[in-house]
Amino acid sequence: MVKKAVLIGTGGVGTVVALALEHAGKCEVTMVARSVYKLASSEGFEVDSVDYGKISNWKPNRITNSVEEAAKYGPYDYVVVSTKNIPELQKTEDVIAPLVVPGNSVVLIQNGIGGEEQLMEAFPESYIIGGISMIGSAIYNNKLSHTVGDHLILGTYDKREEAKKALQDFYDIYSVSKSRTELVTNLKYRRWVKLVYNSAFNTTAALTGLDTGRLMYSDLTYSTIMPAMLEVRKIAETELGEKLPEGIEKFMIVSDNGVHFEPSMLVDVKKGQPMEIEVILGNPLRIAKKLGVETPVLSMLYRLLHGVQFKLLEQRGVYTVPPSPFDPETVKPLFPLNL
Amino acid sequence: MVKKAVLIGTGGVGTVVALALEHAGKCEVTMVARSVYKLASSEGFEVDSVDYGKISNWKPNRITNSVEEAAKYGPYDYVVVSTKNIPELQKTEDVIAPLVVPGNSVVLIQNGIGGEEQLMEAFPESYIIGGISMIGSAIYNNKLSHTVGDHLILGTYDKREEAKKALQDFYDIYSVSKSRTELVTNLKYRRWVKLVYNSAFNTTAALTGLDTGRLMYSDLTYSTIMPAMLEVRKIAETELGEKLPEGIEKFMIVSDNGVHFEPSMLVDVKKGQPMEIEVILGNPLRIAKKLGVETPVLSMLYRLLHGVQFKLLEQRGVYTVPPSPFDPETVKPLFPLNL
Repeated sequence: MVKKAVLIGTGGVGTVVALALEHAGKCEVTMVARSVYKLASSEGFEVDSVDYGKISNWKPNRITNSVEEAAKYGPYDYVVVSTKNIPELQKTEDVIAPLVVPGNSVVLIQNGIGGEEQLMEAFPESYIIGGISMIGSAIYNNKLSHTVGDHLILGTYDKREEAKKALQDFYDIYSVSKSRTELVTNLKYRRWVKLVYNSAFNTTAALTGLDTGRLMYSDLTYSTIMPAMLEVRKIAETELGEKLPEGIEKFMIVSDNGVHFEPSMLVDVKKGQPMEIEVILGNPLRIAKKLGVETPVLSMLYRLLHGVQFKLLEQRGVYTVPPSPFDPETVKPLFPLNL
Repeated sequence: MVKKAVLIGTGGVGTVVALALEHAGKCEVTMVARSVYKLASSEGFEVDSVDYGKISNWKPNRITNSVEEAAKYGPYDYVVVSTKNIPELQKTEDVIAPLVVPGNSVVLIQNGIGGEEQLMEAFPESYIIGGISMIGSAIYNNKLSHTVGDHLILGTYDKREEAKKALQDFYDIYSVSKSRTELVTNLKYRRWVKLVYNSAFNTTAALTGLDTGRLMYSDLTYSTIMPAMLEVRKIAETELGEKLPEGIEKFMIVSDNGVHFEPSMLVDVKKGQPMEIEVILGNPLRIAKKLGVETPVLSMLYRLLHGVQFKLLEQRGVYTVPPSPFDPETVKPLFPLNL
């Protein structure tokens, strides 16, 4: 029987996910498009993909311009979320609430740590599947440029048998695509491994404005990023109760620095967009605090990035800073640190 | 007898210093102008000063367009330096070398720590006077806007009697101006007090892009700047062997945060100009290291700013970053940390 999926987040990742899900005819995808709705619903997507080739005017089963509109065509077996996770702007559970019904699956294909737990709490009658996407892909208007093959790691923290069945079903659909699909029992472990890179490189790049090559040429890779990575390892190993692979820090540095790569948070700062600080750095630090792990380097990065995020949110109109003079003795922060 | 001074650094500080020195007719000033030479030598300066009033077409005794040209009219009693101190671009001792002769005085009106020591080493036959400028002043082309009264603190580390005499002589000239002039025996103490503010506020503002008010509204003032200030205090008190005034951190925060003030390093980043990291943060940290004082917050600020500085220097053409790919295993930093 053909399954039904609704997908929120039609960026470089989400559009490839839609292609993969529909590839074998086993799933019909409704994409919720916002900024790209008009263009995509009239002309479709211009696909240029290392996995799926060049396709002109590609359209999924349906495109809607809002979650509410998409909800009319439900219920869905899968609510797939590949938006950025920026709780300062909106909480994922609020965005997808109109689409979630008891017994369906929510597939969270996002960066960082803590997203699944939050959804499990918000939607106890659904099955929360986690996806870690390893991909090189970007979208400009309706033009998809997918250059590094899709590799999706799927798992769940849900111990119920039905949840494992739901995970297996989703894997069965995705794995007949051209994407590389991996079903894992250690999702959290894999998320932490990815965070060793993201929590250190993304953050330092965003603060300095330097790409990975320039971080090396300015002597920050081993002086600052390596200590940050070792702190992520320490949190992870304390939480997981097991060791991360030996030497991954050096491996990640070396495998990256032959190119001038701009990590996602640096791209966000350059574009003036809020960054995914909370899932990439805030949640790991809250876990560290609970476990009593010391994190001087990461904490400093977090506080400084919180300041940068404030500026980005102010530019979006989220905060209005009172003009001077204000009373310095009684002023309360508009954007308090939550740590 | 009328004294002769040559002044390098015709910014907001230097131009007021020239006005002060010439005020009572006791000193003739030769200004070395670079970018503003043509305009200033033809039209003079448009002065709008809280201390000296409005003066059209003000000119000092002489304006030259280079140090070498100025040297022809020497020797000078005073070589006054009010440039920015950015050793990554050029060393102060190299800039002023053509003007320094045995027995004259070099007056260093700059931010930070370590400048005098460096000049004492370079010019052992001159007398090195230190000046700490507390002023609100800026210059745009040849238009001086001087809004907060000039307050110049003068002292020397030189123990020789002739040096003390030279300091007194310079004070005697400057103090008959409209500026507030202070002769102190604890120059280093005063420099450290100013650094409590600069090392913490300038640096955090430069990294986050936030002015002093926004640092408060984004919750960084007490979470990040205060700990940074307390580290500066610790270094200072260890080096000086005496306590800094109690509560200056809180006082500095409160006296500042009624306004949205942009510290100088933030202004530099916004203008794409290299920052005075080394005298404001690098030198204090090198002293801390020698004394065994721990500085986790300041060290992190320093490393990140070193990365930002690299970018600013690259934009100036000081560094050319090789294109990718490069060999990640053997690459050497172009701009190594010196700490």
